[in-house]
Amino acid sequence: MGEVQTDHLAHERGRAEFDVEAMKIVWAGSKQAFDVSDRIARLVASDPVFRKDNRAMLGRKELFKNTMRKAAHAWKRIIELRLSEEEASRFRAFVDEPAFTDLHWGMFVPAIKGQGTDEQQQKWLPLAYKMQIVGCYAQTELGHGSNVQGLETTATFDPKSDEFVINSPTLTSSKWWPGGLGKASTHAVVYARLIIGNQHHGVHGFIVQLRNLDNHVPLPGITVGDIGMKFGNGAYNTMDNGVLRFDNVRIPRNQMLMRVSQVTREGRFVHSNIPRQLVYGTMVYVRQTIVSDASIALSRAVCVATRYSAVRRQFGAKNGGLETQVIDYKTQQNRLFPLLASAYAFRFVGEWLKWLYTDVTQRLQAKDFSTLPEAHACTAGLKSLTTSITADGIEECRKLCGGHGYLFSSGLPELFAVYVPSCTYEGDNYILQLQVARILMKTVSQLGSGVQPVGTTAYLGRVEHLMQCQCSVQKAEDWLKPSTIQEAFEARATRMAVACAQKLSTMPNQEEGFAELSADLVEVAIAHCQLIVVSKFIEKLQQDIPGKGVRKQLEVLCNVYALSLLHKHQGDFLATGSITPEQGSLANDQLRHLYDQVRPNAVALVDAFNYTDHYLGSILGRYDGNVYPKLYEEAWKDPLNDSDVPDGYNEYLRPMLKQQLLLARL
Amino acid sequence: MGEVQTDHLAHERGRAEFDVEAMKIVWAGSKQAFDVSDRIARLVASDPVFRKDNRAMLGRKELFKNTMRKAAHAWKRIIELRLSEEEASRFRAFVDEPAFTDLHWGMFVPAIKGQGTDEQQQKWLPLAYKMQIVGCYAQTELGHGSNVQGLETTATFDPKSDEFVINSPTLTSSKWWPGGLGKASTHAVVYARLIIGNQHHGVHGFIVQLRNLDNHVPLPGITVGDIGMKFGNGAYNTMDNGVLRFDNVRIPRNQMLMRVSQVTREGRFVHSNIPRQLVYGTMVYVRQTIVSDASIALSRAVCVATRYSAVRRQFGAKNGGLETQVIDYKTQQNRLFPLLASAYAFRFVGEWLKWLYTDVTQRLQAKDFSTLPEAHACTAGLKSLTTSITADGIEECRKLCGGHGYLFSSGLPELFAVYVPSCTYEGDNYILQLQVARILMKTVSQLGSGVQPVGTTAYLGRVEHLMQCQCSVQKAEDWLKPSTIQEAFEARATRMAVACAQKLSTMPNQEEGFAELSADLVEVAIAHCQLIVVSKFIEKLQQDIPGKGVRKQLEVLCNVYALSLLHKHQGDFLATGSITPEQGSLANDQLRHLYDQVRPNAVALVDAFNYTDHYLGSILGRYDGNVYPKLYEEAWKDPLNDSDVPDGYNEYLRPMLKQQLLLARL
Repeated sequence: MGEVQTDHLAHERGRAEFDVEAMKIVWAGSKQAFDVSDRIARLVASDPVFRKDNRAMLGRKELFKNTMRKAAHAWKRIIELRLSEEEASRFRAFVDEPAFTDLHWGMFVPAIKGQGTDEQQQKWLPLAYKMQIVGCYAQTELGHGSNVQGLETTATFDPKSDEFVINSPTLTSSKWWPGGLGKASTHAVVYARLIIGNQHHGVHGFIVQLRNLDNHVPLPGITVGDIGMKFGNGAYNTMDNGVLRFDNVRIPRNQMLMRVSQVTREGRFVHSNIPRQLVYGTMVYVRQTIVSDASIALSRAVCVATRYSAVRRQFGAKNGGLETQVIDYKTQQNRLFPLLASAYAFRFVGEWLKWLYTDVTQRLQAKDFSTLPEAHACTAGLKSLTTSITADGIEECRKLCGGHGYLFSSGLPELFAVYVPSCTYEGDNYILQLQVARILMKTVSQLGSGVQPVGTTAYLGRVEHLMQCQCSVQKAEDWLKPSTIQEAFEARATRMAVACAQKLSTMPNQEEGFAELSADLVEVAIAHCQLIVVSKFIEKLQQDIPGKGVRKQLEVLCNVYALSLLHKHQGDFLATGSITPEQGSLANDQLRHLYDQVRPNAVALVDAFNYTDHYLGSILGRYDGNVYPKLYEEAWKDPLNDSDVPDGYNEYLRPMLKQQLLLARL
Repeated sequence: MGEVQTDHLAHERGRAEFDVEAMKIVWAGSKQAFDVSDRIARLVASDPVFRKDNRAMLGRKELFKNTMRKAAHAWKRIIELRLSEEEASRFRAFVDEPAFTDLHWGMFVPAIKGQGTDEQQQKWLPLAYKMQIVGCYAQTELGHGSNVQGLETTATFDPKSDEFVINSPTLTSSKWWPGGLGKASTHAVVYARLIIGNQHHGVHGFIVQLRNLDNHVPLPGITVGDIGMKFGNGAYNTMDNGVLRFDNVRIPRNQMLMRVSQVTREGRFVHSNIPRQLVYGTMVYVRQTIVSDASIALSRAVCVATRYSAVRRQFGAKNGGLETQVIDYKTQQNRLFPLLASAYAFRFVGEWLKWLYTDVTQRLQAKDFSTLPEAHACTAGLKSLTTSITADGIEECRKLCGGHGYLFSSGLPELFAVYVPSCTYEGDNYILQLQVARILMKTVSQLGSGVQPVGTTAYLGRVEHLMQCQCSVQKAEDWLKPSTIQEAFEARATRMAVACAQKLSTMPNQEEGFAELSADLVEVAIAHCQLIVVSKFIEKLQQDIPGKGVRKQLEVLCNVYALSLLHKHQGDFLATGSITPEQGSLANDQLRHLYDQVRPNAVALVDAFNYTDHYLGSILGRYDGNVYPKLYEEAWKDPLNDSDVPDGYNEYLRPMLKQQLLLARL
């Protein structure tokens, strides 16, 4: 007979006012996507090789060895199960541990696909697809991060031997950070300054072999290693982020990725007729996946915090009865429910970005570059917005779990430590918002000149109306109208953008003015990006949404998302006169009422994410809510509990207690 | 011949417009305090036993063994050097690693001093002072955190044997979290529900021996262990936070701490004539130290981020010259300088809290309890405010260091992981702000009834003026007047408090209304607490401040602190009509000008903290700015770099590369 499982959250689940199974499909995007995720997640969860709970106890070497074991096992299972590319990618995602394979599949392969010629693709992709080689993406250097043009590594063409000489001329030119570089990769796409004769021709990618394929020993001229421990216990310490130096390493000319630019046998530097804008298409793609990942990371944290807030009780006991569930406190709701709403909001904006990527790709193929700057800025801005909120949101969820959130076994410290790099990689979040601001300033300056703003900036075309419109809200319920919310966000974004553009226009030098006002410009960009997320959530609600009560729940969450933002950024809305103080206060009243509507559905709304306990990796977030016995059980597994008297007692503690310390050699 | 040390930040230091040595003394509080700190910090830094850089590489057992070693060595040195109590405490602080001794000195000893009778103190304190026993403070339980009245552990008086029987009746009653409990402590002050006959008499403290003093084995009936890994690599994993269960453990009656309440031989429960309010005095003390610690933690992070922002260059290279120092970017300044100003602000408010504690203590001795509720609320609020901002501020500083901030060797992940519990312990930050709000609501409701608000709430006595006064700012420089700033903050806090009180008064049930409006009430409390910090900074500037240019710097920082807060919370100021949108915009303009004034002094302003490189524990924050060679050097120390080919290659990586995976057993 199996163990009888009690569902400690059954009562909460019984309170749900909507069809959870239907919501699961909305969250997943489609029935088919749900089925794949559900099946693959269970496959991974049931395989003991993929256990995650012991990570905190492993030393660095064991940790990395374990990464290799998991990667090899995952690959074996992927082959055995004949998984499709999409399924394989889901499989790796559910293994839920950063690994060199992430970079192999996520950066190395796409770099060759995107920047390699047909010939290069034919040579390298089969090797990579079969994992006969393992590759990484070596761009950043010890002294150079976001500014690709500042990279110091050189690739000098030697016309005699028809080779490039790859070299690290300075310490700061050492490649630094690339995942998978330190220990696992046999190859790398290395970004270096191309030099032909005395001419510099900008930064390009080169395929460089790093290690002997027979014994994995680094090749002559290559110094390669791991850059050491990073934030957290497990987190990215399962990844061999690497350092790499070249001492005049020679590679054949045909290992420069030559789809866009070529070096000929004679040493001439030429451009192909492939549009360079293709690069932006790739960036749109990568950032779109980051936005999707944000919704996943945030929803995991929210799932843990919501379930544990329903389990945990504190204060408010009457007549010796149970204490109050902390999820019933308004302060808890006011911190948690906007994050729950954000998780859904990010999910839907991520879905829309997928569409945008397809649209951009089709236009690129038709040589229509008109929407590219806006699409590029919009993905940059959304990457920045969603990763910042998610990183802070995970930490807020941890705090919402009280002291126990600080335990490794809560899963939240790991989730945070593994997530925060998203705010820095693929474009620092502040730099990205300045890119958005630049487009906005340009768009505003062109208003009236006949150039129609496109895509997510289209609303700026209604600048005259938006500069003078007045919010019509007179009572709290008026804030439930999508058009009212949308217009308030549009007015705020427009007015902030116009005010900044005006200020900018009074500056003698535009570039210096832009630098001087950059903090304000970031706020303008954020206002614009928040508007996008709100708009896309509202658009989603205009679609057909099957399932009992599902649409209603999403409407509530959409309003929670918008009104909590409105409250948080009240200063913007008031300063621009987009709403009055009274209307701001009514929005806040409405928000409280909305929390009452979320409350009975909260647990079901996080159940809809359909995460396995393995994937959540959190005792506090267990599906069955059986938190305390499991926390207690888990504690005893710590190596410190191997013995009652700790190792070191005789050397250090006893002499102290026995007043024999001054004689002791410590 | 010694190594020639180049100061890569010499140019920055040369730009300072003030006397850094004089500022060091202002920061330390006095010449004497500076001398002690300086001397002790150097003592610790120069002792190889106290190295911290290897923490990330130690497994849990080694980590804890190392803690014991450091604790024993520190104690040995403290005795050898005949350090005073104050010096010993500084010594432990500079060792900079959470240890069981923190709880012994910081909680166990004070609990006995505060709650023990004279007899009990005479018996237990000498043992504790000599460390013949090691004690901890066992209050929280697996199922019970902030709500002390909800604790389940019982202490039942047995009149026959004149003993208390300490018992853990449920799993959730297991003591959980107490630092030092798991492995090191021989004794604990245990909080339990006192039961005499069938009567419950609330929660009291009891001294309980946990382990045999000869061999450290847990005594019969005691189950004790460590609760397992926590957030971060090292961080609090050097601490043996513990779990403890009692199976009817008997202790003599005289081990109940009986200063305030007693149980007599006959089993009568009686109160002494010692005022119970003394407990609040202790809370004021503990929270005051937490505020001081906040200024230290934040200033460490700011020191690292400031120095590295001066070292790091990115973008903006002209004609092949150097790139721009990131500290010159306005977005960087706008994130960093308010945190720098906050570190100074928290330092001064912490100093003032020390004074407040002395004042409260003197009044308590004179049986004057009139200021106690306000003083208690004010320390609670400041604890909440400063720890929240510091936790977020450390993480912001980490992000300000770009990718490298994510490295363990940057010191910032550790600083964050070790700091964040401050937001939860000694009162959850949200619960504390609700306590502040309660006092504010009470104070507002009594206005006009003749009760004069005292202490930090005194401004509410000028409610009539503050409800209708208008901010006089007409140009950006007008924001430099302290009285203007002060009045704007007072008006905002008053108007928010009054608005909330009015809303509350319309609610049918006051308690339910308070719960319903709790999110708003937290905002009211924060506005009040920010006002306190601003006021105390302004007061500080009215004192005599020696040293060339020192006052000027502090004036700039005070203005940065206030105006950055004003911008961040613009919604409050505008919604209450405390300022106009134009005035808000002028404040922002002034803030940018202030950043220009901070910029040349930034590195010197963090030098004034006088932190040793050992204490900072950050390669990015090194005094000499020699960041990149040291990062490079450090990387190679990771165990993963012991061999070129990683352990596990043959088992896992090679079979994958050689397509022999399906045959392999993984």
